[in-house]
Amino acid sequence: MRRICSLFLFAASLANAEAVDWLVTARYVVSMDANRRVIEHGAVAVEGQRIVAVGTEADLAHRYQPKQRLSRPDALIAPGLINTHTHAAMSLFRGVADDRRLQDWLENYIFPAEAKNLSPDFVRWGTRLACLEMLLSGTTTFTDGYYFEDVVAEAAKEAGMRGVLGETVIGFPVADAKTPADALALTEKFLIRFHDDPLITPAVAPHAIYTNTDDTLRAARALANKYNAPLLMHVSETKKENDDVLAKRGVSPVKALDAIGFFNGRTLIAHGVWLDDTDIAILKKHGTGVAHCPSSNMKLSSGAAPVIKMLASGINVGLGPDGPAGSNNDFDMFEEIDLAAKLQKLVTMDPQSLPATVALEMATISGARALGLDKEIGSLEPGKRADFITVSLGTPNAVPLYDVYSQMVYALKGSNVNDVMIDGKAVVVNRRVLTLNAPQIIAKAREYGEQVRRSLAK
Amino acid sequence: MRRICSLFLFAASLANAEAVDWLVTARYVVSMDANRRVIEHGAVAVEGQRIVAVGTEADLAHRYQPKQRLSRPDALIAPGLINTHTHAAMSLFRGVADDRRLQDWLENYIFPAEAKNLSPDFVRWGTRLACLEMLLSGTTTFTDGYYFEDVVAEAAKEAGMRGVLGETVIGFPVADAKTPADALALTEKFLIRFHDDPLITPAVAPHAIYTNTDDTLRAARALANKYNAPLLMHVSETKKENDDVLAKRGVSPVKALDAIGFFNGRTLIAHGVWLDDTDIAILKKHGTGVAHCPSSNMKLSSGAAPVIKMLASGINVGLGPDGPAGSNNDFDMFEEIDLAAKLQKLVTMDPQSLPATVALEMATISGARALGLDKEIGSLEPGKRADFITVSLGTPNAVPLYDVYSQMVYALKGSNVNDVMIDGKAVVVNRRVLTLNAPQIIAKAREYGEQVRRSLAK
Repeated sequence: MRRICSLFLFAASLANAEAVDWLVTARYVVSMDANRRVIEHGAVAVEGQRIVAVGTEADLAHRYQPKQRLSRPDALIAPGLINTHTHAAMSLFRGVADDRRLQDWLENYIFPAEAKNLSPDFVRWGTRLACLEMLLSGTTTFTDGYYFEDVVAEAAKEAGMRGVLGETVIGFPVADAKTPADALALTEKFLIRFHDDPLITPAVAPHAIYTNTDDTLRAARALANKYNAPLLMHVSETKKENDDVLAKRGVSPVKALDAIGFFNGRTLIAHGVWLDDTDIAILKKHGTGVAHCPSSNMKLSSGAAPVIKMLASGINVGLGPDGPAGSNNDFDMFEEIDLAAKLQKLVTMDPQSLPATVALEMATISGARALGLDKEIGSLEPGKRADFITVSLGTPNAVPLYDVYSQMVYALKGSNVNDVMIDGKAVVVNRRVLTLNAPQIIAKAREYGEQVRRSLAK
Repeated sequence: MRRICSLFLFAASLANAEAVDWLVTARYVVSMDANRRVIEHGAVAVEGQRIVAVGTEADLAHRYQPKQRLSRPDALIAPGLINTHTHAAMSLFRGVADDRRLQDWLENYIFPAEAKNLSPDFVRWGTRLACLEMLLSGTTTFTDGYYFEDVVAEAAKEAGMRGVLGETVIGFPVADAKTPADALALTEKFLIRFHDDPLITPAVAPHAIYTNTDDTLRAARALANKYNAPLLMHVSETKKENDDVLAKRGVSPVKALDAIGFFNGRTLIAHGVWLDDTDIAILKKHGTGVAHCPSSNMKLSSGAAPVIKMLASGINVGLGPDGPAGSNNDFDMFEEIDLAAKLQKLVTMDPQSLPATVALEMATISGARALGLDKEIGSLEPGKRADFITVSLGTPNAVPLYDVYSQMVYALKGSNVNDVMIDGKAVVVNRRVLTLNAPQIIAKAREYGEQVRRSLAK
């Protein structure tokens, strides 16, 4: 009798079921919405580029008639991970000079390697390699600062990834700009070209306070505000940066930047390792976001950022792996989530600090807020872009499962990511990246590796 | 002409080529021998349980005629990773109570969960799950302290894994022993039963100085020495442990233990977070090994162990993931290697401290020395046990490759492990574990998860 009933209800429901492009179902949906809903036997309905509904499979299966179904009964669905700071094309310099002091690493390896090797083609293949790796570890949005950023944008779109991308503005001649003015001109072209792009948010990206003049930084702020674009910059990454600015100007980098109006608009600073309480108050006042990079800060001996204080003050803190050329050396956001939690537990000596839920927030909704994109991404809610991942719960490291947040943060790996949907498109299915030619990218990466090796041997 | 020549040489060589069980070839062999040889286009020849030769593929292919070949032209061969501290069967408590203070976690979750759930069957399935996860992330030897340790040994042998295993001796009634005396009696049976086992090194494992009397610790030392077994114990894990011992005895745990002769024999202490210079000198004098557990020490806010000082003093330091019930929450040695390097770079503020080579040593040859097993395992050398892994170099995170140690430590993942050989047997081939029934183990782990959840709800 119940069977007949449910069949009747099913038939009835189909009659007025709404057509959608996708119905994706899983054992759990980790929404990261305002109520932090975790829906068991959940589903996400997608129409076009956006989520139309998030609920139980039972409910959505009746309300929607999908063109395509993705059924993952032994996985969870989570918002796509948001990388708030990296240098994607540096994938081709992965581990080229590890375990060295920052200045030695930069001046004797990275800057020469870049001077001798950078080209649009290098950046295109480096970004493709990075996208391949990011997609296979669950990243759907990445925030990048490098050179030939228009090529980075083309490669990101080709990969089907969302990017917040800024052409580096730096006070010495680089591959695609002789002067900061040239770089700002390139940036404006870039802002115009990718204005209103569904995947690319063009940004303005001065490198740092110690590699740019105040005039360049003011011009960068003005340019960002002219196009309501985010301004991205490395700030207070090392003690040396803070000490040098203090010696030169008598204040911290943040106070020096505040004095020239640098934070008056959309801003995301990377690192913020050496922020003091006044700096934090200034960033909070301006709604500036912070990209926390635990792997990079540890590997380069930069220090441990005051993340707990930043979060307590209400600053939106995201996570980033930084570049793979010596800071990390990969793009795996699962490791940054895990390490962000563990690093704060160590420095505060309190195992309750930065719990799993907060660590996952940093990689999703808080990262979206830090980028000013939280109306579009960062959680699974009707109206938002359909950017999400499925993560397998059927592997040895995933069982048993007592708490879905704990499992996601401390036990699951990038390699457990099974599928990736971005902007309503299935980009990865069963760990196959549909948008990129993996064997060709890996072969090209090796060719470039040989070229870089030869260039440094000279 | 050269072709004919080489064919002739090949034919000639086969005539007096030595028969062996296995010839495993790869792009690189990372030997971790005294000269830290890295052999490009290398090979390892295996006869029975042992390595008979390590060299170039060209050389060994001429000298040996193998019954079986494993060809991995796009991978590296490295010694199997050695886990020097864990509690394998706690896999069934993975993440049962995270982000809590140690005492709350132990007294309100772990001890009650153990009291209500531990049984030989629980330990068997928990250890099987742990072995499955350890094998798939490249661990060939694990060092364990738990209950029903004879069952742990049976499960390890069934999985084909090498284990240094000790029945926990602790000052309150536990599942398999009412008193420390009962636990020591069980231990002696265990030492006799697994004496001369090819895979199992039975050990004596008092839990800690704060959970055992001096008499028990003296008896444990005497028992270990009677069978020349390693003595394993948690020492100076937390500041509280050090403060309590200091308050009670006026000295550090290491000094208190030295005073009762605890270190007079094979000893491996876990953690050693709060060791001072005198403690380090005492451990060095006795040749005591230390199991460093960076993930656990960070997650539980125990602190950062003085690893650089220990290494400088010549102490053999290995790595361990600790238990997955709240300390980690997995068994991935690749993450411990990466984190060991990054943690020391952070605490010393020197990016040159604990370079990649040293981090990999800790997970291989130094770990073997810490266990007193370096004549048998820890490097790829003729005469040693054939315990090694192949790690794929063909994945996006593995290219380009500039330095094989850097790649292994900072870029490669447990999920890149492709094959595992232990004691001359192929245990994992192409990520398939040949010795264990993965689907059955995962199903059982979930059943036990439900049982544990119900037991804690009561």
